[in-house]
Amino acid sequence: MSSSAGQAARAVYLPGSAAEQVSEARLWQRHMEMAELGAIPGNGVNRQALSEEDIAARRLLIDWARARGFTAAQDAIGNLFIRRLGRDPSAAPVLTGSHLDSQPSGGRFDGTYGVLAGLEALEALEDAGAVTERPVEVVAWTNEEGGRFAPGAMGSMVFTGACALADCLAVTDSNGVRLEDALAATLEATPIDGIRSFNFPIAAYIEAHIEQGPHLEAEGVPIGVVTGIQGSRWFEVEVLGESAHAGAAPLKTRRDALQDALAAIQALNLTMADDSDTLRFTVGRFEVTPNSPNTVASRVLFTIDLRHPEAQVLDRLGDIVEETCKDAAGRCDVRVREIFHRAPCEFDAAVQAAIEESARELALPATRMPSGAFHDAQFLNDVCPSGMLFVPCEKGISHNPAEKALPKDLAAGARVLTLALLRLATR
Amino acid sequence: MSSSAGQAARAVYLPGSAAEQVSEARLWQRHMEMAELGAIPGNGVNRQALSEEDIAARRLLIDWARARGFTAAQDAIGNLFIRRLGRDPSAAPVLTGSHLDSQPSGGRFDGTYGVLAGLEALEALEDAGAVTERPVEVVAWTNEEGGRFAPGAMGSMVFTGACALADCLAVTDSNGVRLEDALAATLEATPIDGIRSFNFPIAAYIEAHIEQGPHLEAEGVPIGVVTGIQGSRWFEVEVLGESAHAGAAPLKTRRDALQDALAAIQALNLTMADDSDTLRFTVGRFEVTPNSPNTVASRVLFTIDLRHPEAQVLDRLGDIVEETCKDAAGRCDVRVREIFHRAPCEFDAAVQAAIEESARELALPATRMPSGAFHDAQFLNDVCPSGMLFVPCEKGISHNPAEKALPKDLAAGARVLTLALLRLATR
Repeated sequence: MSSSAGQAARAVYLPGSAAEQVSEARLWQRHMEMAELGAIPGNGVNRQALSEEDIAARRLLIDWARARGFTAAQDAIGNLFIRRLGRDPSAAPVLTGSHLDSQPSGGRFDGTYGVLAGLEALEALEDAGAVTERPVEVVAWTNEEGGRFAPGAMGSMVFTGACALADCLAVTDSNGVRLEDALAATLEATPIDGIRSFNFPIAAYIEAHIEQGPHLEAEGVPIGVVTGIQGSRWFEVEVLGESAHAGAAPLKTRRDALQDALAAIQALNLTMADDSDTLRFTVGRFEVTPNSPNTVASRVLFTIDLRHPEAQVLDRLGDIVEETCKDAAGRCDVRVREIFHRAPCEFDAAVQAAIEESARELALPATRMPSGAFHDAQFLNDVCPSGMLFVPCEKGISHNPAEKALPKDLAAGARVLTLALLRLATR
Repeated sequence: MSSSAGQAARAVYLPGSAAEQVSEARLWQRHMEMAELGAIPGNGVNRQALSEEDIAARRLLIDWARARGFTAAQDAIGNLFIRRLGRDPSAAPVLTGSHLDSQPSGGRFDGTYGVLAGLEALEALEDAGAVTERPVEVVAWTNEEGGRFAPGAMGSMVFTGACALADCLAVTDSNGVRLEDALAATLEATPIDGIRSFNFPIAAYIEAHIEQGPHLEAEGVPIGVVTGIQGSRWFEVEVLGESAHAGAAPLKTRRDALQDALAAIQALNLTMADDSDTLRFTVGRFEVTPNSPNTVASRVLFTIDLRHPEAQVLDRLGDIVEETCKDAAGRCDVRVREIFHRAPCEFDAAVQAAIEESARELALPATRMPSGAFHDAQFLNDVCPSGMLFVPCEKGISHNPAEKALPKDLAAGARVLTLALLRLATR
């Protein structure tokens, strides 16, 4: 229980003092402590969803929360909620957060920032003695990255009903581990105070995040007010050939899965050509069986990640993926499966305004901008008024150990977040 | 010690009876028992060099050998020698054998046949009471396949001095395991009677093997007398880019290692085009870092396996691999390393004749033919008169669980091998 829950006599709305309570040093120190969980060379993080490292991160967050009297709860997909009570404990909470899992070779700020900025906001409210009408909660969504268990954003999708729990439980990682088993181990290892149902009423959701693009840094603007997120479609393409001896089998008789996969990707490159450089087309995973230098590949599995801000373009291009791959392959069989499809989203006007006004109150320049990456916020936007705020990161580098953000920028974002939460939770 | 070693009073040269002692049933049964060690679905075998499965195969071979009174010895790279004594124990032995390791998704006969046919020949000599002048030995060379630790044929290369032991010890597999450690575990787990030095004197070497090509089966000829082996060059190509967020990073700014690796392979395809279909060009391994659907690849490592019967063609094409890859890559850095280079080899005329005459004596049709695959015999050929005999395999399929050979063909090859060994060991 929040130590301030009963202090109804104190001032309800203390924007200035709450923002002042945000501690740049504390926020930075916590990023550095989190970065030790799954640390990899070059300041990177490998903290994949539902791994030992993810469990350690969840436990550390709960430790910090409980030390301030906040309570922790989890739902059946492992989404973790940290609650600071408001005057009306039964009111729908205002939610903020992001995710603690990382890419296999990820950075220290992607996702983690949104969770730690949320906790910082809760502590700032606490330190300022602010009493909100509604509870304010920090959430760490399960498996946003999707690097281990595809697709990503599973926690927020299952929570909001965009995807069925049972479908996610059956997903396996590249070592054959079922998500169901990894999730059970995670839930068991996480000490909580209560269980949450999916899709409980939420008054509003704000997600703070590093930009993962170069614009804020280049323009010297500390705050991005995110207007929406481009749509995404993910595909898995399986190319099935026949293994053969590299020294003996004539090239003309081969059914070489690697060569046919290559031809499919080259054909996709042509199909996806976009002079405006708006389309995002990525083949990021490519796995060969048996993957031996002197054996012709019998099977290749590769993924396609396709994104565009216009639903119509995304639909058209995604719909020709299968035909393009099949036409390009030579003697191999090709199977294409769409594993994720999300239309572009537009964030709630009132949440955008709350972020923008909070920045103005703190005299921090802010700019409206779209998001290239997808985020849990786009699923929350289906069930409650949602929005995001971006802070700058160095050269836009993300999904990379070299991902970097400045302590002062992280703190500025946390101050804006604190005020915006206060606005939304006091209405 | 061989139980026949002291029986000098018995007949020395009993070709008919020795070949008659070859047991089709015993030879087949042993293939089936070996196939259980590392068995994978579809009748395949995954018994990679110096693995638990490889150790089990070595131990099984030693058990069978000792049950007949033969002795086992190993050298420092793990080559395993099974000796049946002759009249002169100090004479240079006649050697036969192949390898027990397999591709990650290999078959039951590649390599294993040469070792088990050799053991069958030793037992046939024993059952016939044949006394040879020289010892006859079966060898199982270490890591012929090179699927786990590249390059292949390490055992025979180190034995014959074609490659330094220290260079092999430092090689790591894709899990980061050093060959040195896997080898130490193997040597420790293998019970032997003696230690062998490298490159001890050998009177002659014959390797029996499935053809791994379609010719013998198609022509209905049971025995191939191998004239030589095409040359091979292996390369590792490393493409170094920069990881980036698949949703955020514009395509024009990316340094995408996967796309540049693809461009390099497409350029190689053009460079290596060969209407005569004599050249063998294979990219069999392709590994992506971080291999996540929504992260632009920062690194790709792929292998090239290039083979041709003419040294001049092989030299010319191998020498332009690096330039071709570097020219084709876009914004990534490319590093090319040649990890194996072996000129074409021609087998010893006397050994070819011994095989051919043995087949004629048994009224088995035989044909002279080159080998597409490389084999340990090509390294032995540098240090002693060497040759190979091939038996048919179904449709030429190899390096594949579906690899298949008929019990009667395996037995016919073992009979020819028995007589050829007897000829060479009695001279």
